[in-house]
Amino acid sequence: METAQQKIERAKARREVGLFKVEPKLEGIPEQLPRNTLGLPASVLTAREIELTENYDVIQLLDILKSRKVSVEEVTRAFLRRAAVAQAATNCLVELMWDQAIERAKYLDSLPEPRGAFFGLPISTKEHHGMVGDNVITTASIIAWVDRKHGSNVMYDDLWEEGCVFYARTTQPQTIMHLETVSNLYGRTDNPYNRDLTPGGSSGGESALVAMRGSLLGIGGDIGGSIRCPSAFVGIYGFKPSVKRITVAGQTGFMAGRETIFSTPGPMTVDRKAMELLMRVILSKKPWRKDPAIIPMPWTPHKFTKPLKIAVQWWDGVVMPHPPITRALKEVVAACQKAGMQVIDWDCTNLDHKKSWDLISALYWPDGGREALDAMNNVDDTVLPLSKWIIEQPTVKDLTQAELWKLTLERDAYRAAYAKAWNATDSGNDDEIDVILCPASFGAATPHEQSKYWGYTSHWNLVDYPGAVFPVTTVDVAKDPKDLSYKPINEQDQFIYDMYDPEVYAGAPVGLQLVGRRLQEEKVLAALDLVEQAMGRS
Amino acid sequence: METAQQKIERAKARREVGLFKVEPKLEGIPEQLPRNTLGLPASVLTAREIELTENYDVIQLLDILKSRKVSVEEVTRAFLRRAAVAQAATNCLVELMWDQAIERAKYLDSLPEPRGAFFGLPISTKEHHGMVGDNVITTASIIAWVDRKHGSNVMYDDLWEEGCVFYARTTQPQTIMHLETVSNLYGRTDNPYNRDLTPGGSSGGESALVAMRGSLLGIGGDIGGSIRCPSAFVGIYGFKPSVKRITVAGQTGFMAGRETIFSTPGPMTVDRKAMELLMRVILSKKPWRKDPAIIPMPWTPHKFTKPLKIAVQWWDGVVMPHPPITRALKEVVAACQKAGMQVIDWDCTNLDHKKSWDLISALYWPDGGREALDAMNNVDDTVLPLSKWIIEQPTVKDLTQAELWKLTLERDAYRAAYAKAWNATDSGNDDEIDVILCPASFGAATPHEQSKYWGYTSHWNLVDYPGAVFPVTTVDVAKDPKDLSYKPINEQDQFIYDMYDPEVYAGAPVGLQLVGRRLQEEKVLAALDLVEQAMGRS
Repeated sequence: METAQQKIERAKARREVGLFKVEPKLEGIPEQLPRNTLGLPASVLTAREIELTENYDVIQLLDILKSRKVSVEEVTRAFLRRAAVAQAATNCLVELMWDQAIERAKYLDSLPEPRGAFFGLPISTKEHHGMVGDNVITTASIIAWVDRKHGSNVMYDDLWEEGCVFYARTTQPQTIMHLETVSNLYGRTDNPYNRDLTPGGSSGGESALVAMRGSLLGIGGDIGGSIRCPSAFVGIYGFKPSVKRITVAGQTGFMAGRETIFSTPGPMTVDRKAMELLMRVILSKKPWRKDPAIIPMPWTPHKFTKPLKIAVQWWDGVVMPHPPITRALKEVVAACQKAGMQVIDWDCTNLDHKKSWDLISALYWPDGGREALDAMNNVDDTVLPLSKWIIEQPTVKDLTQAELWKLTLERDAYRAAYAKAWNATDSGNDDEIDVILCPASFGAATPHEQSKYWGYTSHWNLVDYPGAVFPVTTVDVAKDPKDLSYKPINEQDQFIYDMYDPEVYAGAPVGLQLVGRRLQEEKVLAALDLVEQAMGRS
Repeated sequence: METAQQKIERAKARREVGLFKVEPKLEGIPEQLPRNTLGLPASVLTAREIELTENYDVIQLLDILKSRKVSVEEVTRAFLRRAAVAQAATNCLVELMWDQAIERAKYLDSLPEPRGAFFGLPISTKEHHGMVGDNVITTASIIAWVDRKHGSNVMYDDLWEEGCVFYARTTQPQTIMHLETVSNLYGRTDNPYNRDLTPGGSSGGESALVAMRGSLLGIGGDIGGSIRCPSAFVGIYGFKPSVKRITVAGQTGFMAGRETIFSTPGPMTVDRKAMELLMRVILSKKPWRKDPAIIPMPWTPHKFTKPLKIAVQWWDGVVMPHPPITRALKEVVAACQKAGMQVIDWDCTNLDHKKSWDLISALYWPDGGREALDAMNNVDDTVLPLSKWIIEQPTVKDLTQAELWKLTLERDAYRAAYAKAWNATDSGNDDEIDVILCPASFGAATPHEQSKYWGYTSHWNLVDYPGAVFPVTTVDVAKDPKDLSYKPINEQDQFIYDMYDPEVYAGAPVGLQLVGRRLQEEKVLAALDLVEQAMGRS
């Protein structure tokens, strides 16, 4: 019988196979990594590699690929090597697909004409989503699945058809249910801004990789914040659509078939416009024809005909955000107001976000966590503290069918009440708010093992509203002192309050979130364009 | 303690209150009803009442109401009296809302201008859906709920806002899960074409009432055929949209909160065009703003740019339809071909419709039927044979969460396989079939208690495809002899085969069904327009 340790070593050795192929070998990575590893690529990569990975946004890179000013292979090799540097810096990879990516690049270069919306673009992917091809192992960072073969991922098949290059598969935490990224199989992923902080989770391999520009466009997944939290924690863009807009078919994970609450994939990227591009291309493939759970809504860009009306959620009534978050909100609000937008407050006092968490935490584990716990315990996959924390939320229980129905009814009543609050922003002149501006987390990237408040993201999963995260600022010790007069209102609030010390977070990115009504993906991204323009961005 | 019998008598007495108010009293209803009761209104109603209830389709009636050539009150009184006749003939009502309807009519007549898309139109409703207003009892034909107050039905609130008159609430069977309409609370509803036959179920009160023209437009609900079966059984139109297109919020029924399979309301009407009208008006109310479970898809009429491509499902591979159904299919196919449409076969051999039933029957009762059985047994509401039959399907069991997930995964795999078969009708020229033409039942209206094969409707609930039923012909003893050479292929097929005798069904209506892909409601109704035009209808 192979022990858990032997399985772990085998998985890590398998990962080394791809990393060992990196050519030329990486040189210049220090034995002892600095706290901030963002500078590493500059000392390891060639000038040409730096140019290819830093000088273009996604759309520009696609332009030069399609014009064939650069070969797919050259671009692919640059991102492969940069991803390997990111791995050395942050431990963000489960697999570097060296041979497959170069084979794919050569094939694309051999085509008489470039073909597909993503021709030649290296796209990184969260490992548990699976991959195209028949002979792929997908572990989901669980020891029990160390040799698990998966079927096809419908969305990745579509991206493949559009000419992309898959080259890097990224880490996720045990159970894929932490806002942190750590597993017994692959260890811990660090934040490149500061290795003492988490890059967030569960798509924390993606966030670390994209922050290092080891990828310009990655695919994460989100059921409680897993795209948005890590995007905010590393200062990139991330977008969680409403569920059933794009397909999860082909992913692996616990509790397949559960319908209480769904995850959705979405883009994580250095480039705001790439979010819209990904959505548009994916929906142009009519995924509902293959996965009939998907709602057949083609991508229809939204045009605003009057100034944006934004509500600001300064806090959720449960946990007060850290000072840099509040400052970021103020800065964005000021910019929006200056640009002529109408900004009102989104008062959560009567919206009971505490209830939102009580509901969603129960909905995550309708079997009380039994399947996940059994799968870990059966192979000595030690249940990690954050896995334990989320499964042991006080609401979690193995439900009878009648209890399950009661819970889904409460969820639906909560959603209806939230919709009613949104409707109430309409003064009778067809002027309801377009979006809510809100935190993406209570703070900047947290020290490891401290991501124990999900409310600023999970709430939008519960109501199933699309949310886009965008970078705003960084923590500034001078501007963001601790508010010593604040009196926490509950235990969670105290925990979060105590966590803040500007020195700990100094220089860490601060992202915010823009949220729209269910299935208004186009509107949210169009609103983000306007907000960023108001912020002086292009 | 009040006994079950006392509760039943109380419910029936309550029903009599509304019927007793009918003014003038109904005269001319024979002590011994004829087998076919369709002629009864002619001998009871005034010429003017006959004119108002027979000379107009829904859109024409709305025209004269809006032009105020007739008062809402006169129209309402005519339909109230005709509904009372239908009740005497078929036992189709739970409540005749005499006072409320006339009060509403007077109010609408008092408005300076007609207001709303349904101004003055009497709309009948399935009782368990509830009603507008605060002081309404909704029994769902269950003794346990004989005094149950309900909240608001969101869709009915919208119809009310559009100016309709609610006046008649119709019967449904015990558990609302028979394709027959019988309960201990209100007894059995008969088919007006032939009292020995069922008007179908579970919206059998609606079908009997609409067939009698006691209503031109009613609202039914469908989770296994409950709009389409009764519509076909009485020769009217019925439309089941995909779920989550229009709201069920506010309905009562067992297993509220269950998500394995959903019901949907839909129109039942004398008038093909009224189906589209109802959908259009309901969606113009943006129900997704109040019920966020609804998909925000405005009604967008479909225009065909090339001749229809139709697949015909001659049978489902499990049970051979009775001869009149096959003849009806042939007649419609001939008309479509003559009109230049392309018709191909929909071969179910490899699509395993037996599996479809095994899945959906289990999905109906994820608690093994416990909630429903307890609710009946606790108050001596004798479990009727068809309730017992459906709850005791061999697949039904009280599921653990893990078993539930396994089942929903199988359901999703089945749906994906079905979508794949539909995709495969595309020859590569963007020419997949537009719709499937298929039976709405294995036969015409069945003798009471014999509706024990749901496959021709429930299958489309499982895959969640919209289906419209339309009248085609009637059973003709000469044209529809029993096929004595047919050898049934399984027990169910034998049961259905043995049931057929042309004499039993003589003169009964035969409807067929047109089905489209999920959420293609507009396309199905547009296709039905073309099919009926091919049949020589306007």
